[in-house]
Amino acid sequence: MPGNTIGKLFRLTTFGESHGLAIGGIIDGFPAGIAINSDFTQNELDKRKPGSTNFGSPRKESDHLEILSGVFQGVSLGTPIAFMVRNADAKPGDYEALRNTFRPSHADYTYSIKYGIRDHRGGGRSSARETVSRVVAGAFAKLFLAGMKISINAFTDSIGPIKITNPDKYQNIASSSANQLRCPDPAISEQILLYLADLKEQGDSTGGTIFCRITGLPPGLGEPVFEKTESELAKAMLSINACIGFEYGSGFAGAALRGSENNDQWKLTEAKKHNGITLLETVTNNSGGIQGGITNGQDIYFRVAFKPVASIRQPQMSYTSEGEHILLEGGGRHDICVVPRAVAVVEAMAAIVIADLLLQQNAYKS
Amino acid sequence: MPGNTIGKLFRLTTFGESHGLAIGGIIDGFPAGIAINSDFTQNELDKRKPGSTNFGSPRKESDHLEILSGVFQGVSLGTPIAFMVRNADAKPGDYEALRNTFRPSHADYTYSIKYGIRDHRGGGRSSARETVSRVVAGAFAKLFLAGMKISINAFTDSIGPIKITNPDKYQNIASSSANQLRCPDPAISEQILLYLADLKEQGDSTGGTIFCRITGLPPGLGEPVFEKTESELAKAMLSINACIGFEYGSGFAGAALRGSENNDQWKLTEAKKHNGITLLETVTNNSGGIQGGITNGQDIYFRVAFKPVASIRQPQMSYTSEGEHILLEGGGRHDICVVPRAVAVVEAMAAIVIADLLLQQNAYKS
Amino acid sequence: MPGNTIGKLFRLTTFGESHGLAIGGIIDGFPAGIAINSDFTQNELDKRKPGSTNFGSPRKESDHLEILSGVFQGVSLGTPIAFMVRNADAKPGDYEALRNTFRPSHADYTYSIKYGIRDHRGGGRSSARETVSRVVAGAFAKLFLAGMKISINAFTDSIGPIKITNPDKYQNIASSSANQLRCPDPAISEQILLYLADLKEQGDSTGGTIFCRITGLPPGLGEPVFEKTESELAKAMLSINACIGFEYGSGFAGAALRGSENNDQWKLTEAKKHNGITLLETVTNNSGGIQGGITNGQDIYFRVAFKPVASIRQPQMSYTSEGEHILLEGGGRHDICVVPRAVAVVEAMAAIVIADLLLQQNAYKS
Amino acid sequence: MPGNTIGKLFRLTTFGESHGLAIGGIIDGFPAGIAINSDFTQNELDKRKPGSTNFGSPRKESDHLEILSGVFQGVSLGTPIAFMVRNADAKPGDYEALRNTFRPSHADYTYSIKYGIRDHRGGGRSSARETVSRVVAGAFAKLFLAGMKISINAFTDSIGPIKITNPDKYQNIASSSANQLRCPDPAISEQILLYLADLKEQGDSTGGTIFCRITGLPPGLGEPVFEKTESELAKAMLSINACIGFEYGSGFAGAALRGSENNDQWKLTEAKKHNGITLLETVTNNSGGIQGGITNGQDIYFRVAFKPVASIRQPQMSYTSEGEHILLEGGGRHDICVVPRAVAVVEAMAAIVIADLLLQQNAYKS
Repeated sequence: MPGNTIGKLFRLTTFGESHGLAIGGIIDGFPAGIAINSDFTQNELDKRKPGSTNFGSPRKESDHLEILSGVFQGVSLGTPIAFMVRNADAKPGDYEALRNTFRPSHADYTYSIKYGIRDHRGGGRSSARETVSRVVAGAFAKLFLAGMKISINAFTDSIGPIKITNPDKYQNIASSSANQLRCPDPAISEQILLYLADLKEQGDSTGGTIFCRITGLPPGLGEPVFEKTESELAKAMLSINACIGFEYGSGFAGAALRGSENNDQWKLTEAKKHNGITLLETVTNNSGGIQGGITNGQDIYFRVAFKPVASIRQPQMSYTSEGEHILLEGGGRHDICVVPRAVAVVEAMAAIVIADLLLQQNAYKS
Repeated sequence: MPGNTIGKLFRLTTFGESHGLAIGGIIDGFPAGIAINSDFTQNELDKRKPGSTNFGSPRKESDHLEILSGVFQGVSLGTPIAFMVRNADAKPGDYEALRNTFRPSHADYTYSIKYGIRDHRGGGRSSARETVSRVVAGAFAKLFLAGMKISINAFTDSIGPIKITNPDKYQNIASSSANQLRCPDPAISEQILLYLADLKEQGDSTGGTIFCRITGLPPGLGEPVFEKTESELAKAMLSINACIGFEYGSGFAGAALRGSENNDQWKLTEAKKHNGITLLETVTNNSGGIQGGITNGQDIYFRVAFKPVASIRQPQMSYTSEGEHILLEGGGRHDICVVPRAVAVVEAMAAIVIADLLLQQNAYKS
Repeated sequence: MPGNTIGKLFRLTTFGESHGLAIGGIIDGFPAGIAINSDFTQNELDKRKPGSTNFGSPRKESDHLEILSGVFQGVSLGTPIAFMVRNADAKPGDYEALRNTFRPSHADYTYSIKYGIRDHRGGGRSSARETVSRVVAGAFAKLFLAGMKISINAFTDSIGPIKITNPDKYQNIASSSANQLRCPDPAISEQILLYLADLKEQGDSTGGTIFCRITGLPPGLGEPVFEKTESELAKAMLSINACIGFEYGSGFAGAALRGSENNDQWKLTEAKKHNGITLLETVTNNSGGIQGGITNGQDIYFRVAFKPVASIRQPQMSYTSEGEHILLEGGGRHDICVVPRAVAVVEAMAAIVIADLLLQQNAYKS
Repeated sequence: MPGNTIGKLFRLTTFGESHGLAIGGIIDGFPAGIAINSDFTQNELDKRKPGSTNFGSPRKESDHLEILSGVFQGVSLGTPIAFMVRNADAKPGDYEALRNTFRPSHADYTYSIKYGIRDHRGGGRSSARETVSRVVAGAFAKLFLAGMKISINAFTDSIGPIKITNPDKYQNIASSSANQLRCPDPAISEQILLYLADLKEQGDSTGGTIFCRITGLPPGLGEPVFEKTESELAKAMLSINACIGFEYGSGFAGAALRGSENNDQWKLTEAKKHNGITLLETVTNNSGGIQGGITNGQDIYFRVAFKPVASIRQPQMSYTSEGEHILLEGGGRHDICVVPRAVAVVEAMAAIVIADLLLQQNAYKS
């Protein structure tokens, strides 16, 4: 049951129900001596705020980040960093009708079956509000990675059937500079906005995909054979609420290619050595920066799929825990599409994974 | 660096280089009192044999499984089960030319950079031969799961551009009854065989996808929030050599749907209760049997993508560790497509993950 | 570096510096459906309060326990239980003189060397105040164990040179009913009080030992070979501030005995079977309830040694981080002997270990 | 149940029953590029051989070490090092009488209760033969530590009631140069030999203590708060068969001292800095080289207690699994005192712990 921790050396443990007192976590293994810019961490947190897009949930979360330990006079101590965000705008009354009801494609039923009890208010622990803690920990991870010139940028790749055609060309656009959809393509963004407006009117929802690129990586990260870089990224991404797919490098499309098309030829740009070996680059990067589970120094890039938001305003038939058939009509406050807000979460989880792999690889440097 | 273990209660740790003395592992946490059918374990192992398809590597591996501990008079003891397979047909000489050369899209370069040393013979630890240990451990996991009527069936879903159209209809076909391609559709299989023959002639290779279905699952498995059922499956699949993508339930295609299309409505078939809650089923199963990271009692199904085999017979340009440019012409013995042999590996990894989640959930039964 | 977590299924992660905002932790893996009696948890916490003995530190800690998550309407949810205690009476100014000074036999120097930075106020993370989190988690563990009729009682066995002669006879006295010294022997307690008064006058301190007994245990707990019951208890005890020794069963004295004296003969009291095996008891219990790392159903008992409190009022010579020689004269507020307050901590750590081993063993019940 | 692994970065997983095919393990996380001297590893293994003392078990174990992976051309690869020793001299027939019998103070009963099945031959997994794997892994750890000038020396401190008076003076004597009792004091050794001869005649056994010193340690090792250096050492020692006590620094005797007697004053020998902090030494070393769980650069020293060997030749009354009362008369081959052979095991476990803590601390070096 204790599945609320991720990471081996950079370790995050989270807590909190959507409408409980607070949501937060403990980061253990954060290196000492790193300046903690609280504007940065708060700003990262603000990126996933429900109120930050017109099409997100209307719930207004003040989301004030409180650091409880591990930072002294603005610098990390090497001890656990505990943090929390009070749940200020919780309206548990809204959810009273759902106390014994299982919404379709939500986790209400599975939590009840697994634990025999659940906090029914807003999804409790299964709420996307849980990602607050991920984004905070990701902000800390980014502060650590920034010192090594590693950066992580994700953006909205598709929403519903509307897709960016070539995500590769957006590699230099930081997510923070993107629009409210976190989509770097203005023309596509306009189409998406129209599509979302239409869904809103129909009381419906949709899903989409996020593209993420990690640059500035050293070669040598990742721990074969079960903790490959891609395994850890896949696990981290699939742990995000509503995530249903992950691919890296040439991905599903690449599976249909020939080896002669997909292979990345080596090239030599300048004669530098590391560990006695001449450093090489690749001509193409269909491997997505990873070979044999270990980074090769090229960019890592991957795509993550999110299912349509399960909460819709259209009436749906359901059952209570007593087996009574009932008609559900969309209560609560919900996103039409989770993708724009999930961009910050994807970046955060990637940062946590890379920070952890970096520390693991450090352990073996001589 | 220690990434050679997977699982929390059902734990597998593996060892072995492709052309070293042996390959094997230790299963720790295997329940006591389970009859170990050695015909079954050997048979599972045979499924991934290179020689089992015309289009696999011509290397003949006798792959005789030796159980070193943990089984006494045919029954598991609850103590670690160590096993190994001697590398009988190793021809290290074949690889002498590759000692200081980095093959494109192989792990030669990344292992050298990470460790400063590598066993160059046949990919060493990064060889797909490492999956022998996974299949053996998977066979043990299947023996455990069989006692709970849980079964796992994977099959070839696509090779190169040739795909099965509706994998759902093949849910009752055990992989063992499939043909040499592990593909349940005879017409598609014929197309694939022609395609592979063509690739062989051209000295090229390809990738593909595998579809896997898990049936007979109890509801309640999976440990939120970072160890969701899908997170653990994704991690396990992406840890398989050459795996580059994972999706479950409606997956990437589902991300483009509307909530009203993708949601799974509940239905009540018979009035049974568990933990005080009426057991429900779903009308559709776009959730792939998992909601909020926890199984809901429906089938889990997922698709895994594999990249084209990196070893091709066409000449490729590469570099040595000294930075010398050289022409590589395909040596060694290789598969044209890894997918048919990987079917056994996908099943094995799924079995290991489910066995582990089952034991974890058991811990909290009252 | 991430050493702030203990346990596998019942997992505690703690945070907090002595004079930071708060101290607390997250319990992950606590079973769902257990009634949480907040009077009990607060009462357990009060047992380790500095103000609870005349000879403890005069610091007055209100120590109000706040549960942030994981408990809903008085019952555990199976989700992480986060808790914290605000540091109300922190007087960081008291410690300003110690900013760059390393007190003898404290952790000031080692934290500085390890992390390059430390929170010098009251020992920061290395303060015994950290044990607040252990006692809270222990209270939760006790609530879980109480449902299985397992109880844990520790008491003061010796302080300085004054020892109880036969701790075995105090097996039925709950620590809560003991006096302010947590010592069950009134005559010995009076001697100890005189001794402590004398030390106080001299500005000196002392150590002592704690005896702990666990009753009501089922046989079969403990995970060979590296996670034996006694290994886990030893680790947990040695992790308590100032702990310098652990022995169980006949312990160090038993090492000098003969096998014929130390062996525990079996006896049969009533003909009951478990797992097909006749349940036995032992005539003596020199094994302390554990054989081969696994509980045999008899009481576990062990003794823990604590070093003299390092903070004394007598002047001591020391050094600053700049290498300057300085004279230290005892500032801050300190215990003369940590043993009476540590009784609650020993019980808490034992409860955490046993709860974890119980859940692990549960996983394999059929 | 999976308790057969120790360590986080330097990880050992072991397997094997006393009279099964083989005993061995996998070391994962061993650094790459270290020369593996196979004479050294075999020689370490020989130190714990039963035949190496007159008073050990007469079983002749050839104990030939076979390295199956992870070492290539005499150098470690950074991949898992699997090793095994075949059980050459197994005489399972000797144990047939014990199939359903529970020997006093052995693990026969507890294994049966826990697992419902056991390998009764020579104690199966609970046999001290399991320590073969520990000694092999310890030899690898020592090879790693030797490169950093860290050395570990343990010796027999007492056997039965006969004790060395001042173990501190033997700090420069390597265990390998000690006599067959691993005791550095010739006069004490003679007394012990007489005592053991007497016990042998009486068909009895005894226990004893081992003293261990670790020199050359850097400051800064150990991960507060639950994975302190002393916690990890205590856990590792208590996991050794028959170990019943652990103390470090001034230990149990120190608990009776005053703070003014026990505190270690700082001294400055030469003006060197680390992490910006002047390096200090201590005048005394009652802290045993550890403060706040972190090494301070002084020697670590500790003492470990072992219970009397449970197998004696004197008749003992016992029970079968069916509850029948039977008379046991010592069969099998056993040590009179396990201490001399356990010296190698204590060193091995200490080496494993320190190697692991070193790698963990490395991860945070900048």
